[in-house]
Amino acid sequence: MQALEVYICILIDIMSNSSNPQYVIGIDLGGTNTKFGIVDKDGHILDQDRIPTDSEKPIEYFIQQLHAKLQPMIDKMGGKQAFIGIGMGAPNGNLYTGNIEYAANLHWKGIVPIAHLITEKFGIKTSLTNDAKAAAMGEMMYGAAKGMKHFITITLGTGVGSGIVIDGKVVVGNDGFAGELGHTIVRHNGRLHKSTGSRGCLEAYASATGVRETALEFLQNNPTTISLLRDYEEEELTSETVYDCAVKGDEIAKNVFEFTGQILGEALANFVMFSSPQAIVLFGGLTKAGSFIMAPTKEAMEKNLYQVFKNKVQLVFSNLKESDAAILGASALVL
Amino acid sequence: MQALEVYICILIDIMSNSSNPQYVIGIDLGGTNTKFGIVDKDGHILDQDRIPTDSEKPIEYFIQQLHAKLQPMIDKMGGKQAFIGIGMGAPNGNLYTGNIEYAANLHWKGIVPIAHLITEKFGIKTSLTNDAKAAAMGEMMYGAAKGMKHFITITLGTGVGSGIVIDGKVVVGNDGFAGELGHTIVRHNGRLHKSTGSRGCLEAYASATGVRETALEFLQNNPTTISLLRDYEEEELTSETVYDCAVKGDEIAKNVFEFTGQILGEALANFVMFSSPQAIVLFGGLTKAGSFIMAPTKEAMEKNLYQVFKNKVQLVFSNLKESDAAILGASALVL
Repeated sequence: MQALEVYICILIDIMSNSSNPQYVIGIDLGGTNTKFGIVDKDGHILDQDRIPTDSEKPIEYFIQQLHAKLQPMIDKMGGKQAFIGIGMGAPNGNLYTGNIEYAANLHWKGIVPIAHLITEKFGIKTSLTNDAKAAAMGEMMYGAAKGMKHFITITLGTGVGSGIVIDGKVVVGNDGFAGELGHTIVRHNGRLHKSTGSRGCLEAYASATGVRETALEFLQNNPTTISLLRDYEEEELTSETVYDCAVKGDEIAKNVFEFTGQILGEALANFVMFSSPQAIVLFGGLTKAGSFIMAPTKEAMEKNLYQVFKNKVQLVFSNLKESDAAILGASALVL
Repeated sequence: MQALEVYICILIDIMSNSSNPQYVIGIDLGGTNTKFGIVDKDGHILDQDRIPTDSEKPIEYFIQQLHAKLQPMIDKMGGKQAFIGIGMGAPNGNLYTGNIEYAANLHWKGIVPIAHLITEKFGIKTSLTNDAKAAAMGEMMYGAAKGMKHFITITLGTGVGSGIVIDGKVVVGNDGFAGELGHTIVRHNGRLHKSTGSRGCLEAYASATGVRETALEFLQNNPTTISLLRDYEEEELTSETVYDCAVKGDEIAKNVFEFTGQILGEALANFVMFSSPQAIVLFGGLTKAGSFIMAPTKEAMEKNLYQVFKNKVQLVFSNLKESDAAILGASALVL
């Protein structure tokens, strides 16, 4: 009898879904992994999974892998009729075209019509945007920027991404690519950014990769200074190990975050003087360094702000769980 | 008989004006002079004049001086009933509050409720914005950015101002002060900006003042290099004299613009990566240097752009007459 009730409930659910789609799919395509989940209209993630992005292989392979995992999840919710749409965030994802275009951190070259390919495969309309813009939408709908009309999110991960919100709308600009703040130049003729060839961009310093590089530089430039960082093999040095050493009071490790924060804060000051946001929300792996990164960043930001902006802008960490935020943000593109 | 006809026409005009206001007043308050004019709905300047800004004296003195010249112009058009409103651009003018707030280039200190004071004095509703934002509105309605939805104007005058337009709207941000791009840092620990105390901001290099300072530095650092610039007394050296010498083939003068353009272009690249505009419109005294400033600026901008933005953004000079543009821009605030 109970089994029959459950069966009827599911049947009613499926029938009501077909006439009234109520779920969305959020896909966050990252350089290493692609996370996806089924989200209801209130922002609850009902189901989620992930696959390696494997962009060395052709895009068709990626679509197949995604289909193999995501289609059963769709079927379980009543099939494609139950879905309003698919929202996707990806590096260099263009809202206007639905293409990933010349993404530096992916191996697929040139222009990849990924929204079209996913729409075709699943029979569900797919919208694409830049991964960092999706994160900004997630922050606005569910996170630290809830209710704000003017804010900027900065993702401090393998790279540095950004989403800019002005008047409650994510800025996409004339061609869909606005908000590539990780590529803005912060040090004239500064550190080489290996995948783009530019010099002195924010991403070369304020990403996990940048922190690692700063640590290696500091160790090399101070060969006689004792440091816990020297206990690690070179390949083991990451922003996490630098953090672990900073917590233990290691001077070089603390200086690495101090240096990173100074550069990041100066860049944030420039962004504030552009769009005058209410808040800047920091997000991604590097934020695990807590006050080691927050304190110098805030100090440098305030120091470099023009008078009218001083002591006005909230600088906060995202309060969304990282894996959830990416999926929620992508799904928000449809809602 | 002719005189009577003219009289009747004026009478009809005045009567129709009183029920259907059709003019606006544009006021451009600059550090040195304040220009104002009467503008019709099609953007024709029907009458205009100017007074010295004299911000060493109290604001009440300024209002009196403005009234002495502007009130007769208003009366000639049929009195305040003929006017839709007054639009005003001023340094650090805040659209939200109608106040000039902590303007570095004016002697009035703190917060000056100028829109309120002018509304009171003339009995015509006055709206205020930043002078550079007013210029952007003028470019959008009547100038090089006509019909564009995404562009940035950069004023290269005594200072460096900017107006950012996204989705056809001038960006004012959370507190009305968005778009202070002249104060963004382009050289870490660079040249001192005397009135703000900051180091390495764009205004310290790409303003008329900055060009003069670069010329002085270059002359000092190359004491044996022959240069036409040495024929001028130090106080005669301006961006105009540097231009005159560059035209005559003077190497140091040409290098001054090359250096200025490199810094400006790098800054513009950063702005493009923020809002992805269709065009950047350059405006103000320094643009008289023509290709001496345009060529290195464009080269540096393209060089520093992330791949997806390259060869997409128009970099152009404003085609509006400078004095007209300021008045038209301010008036556009009301229209």
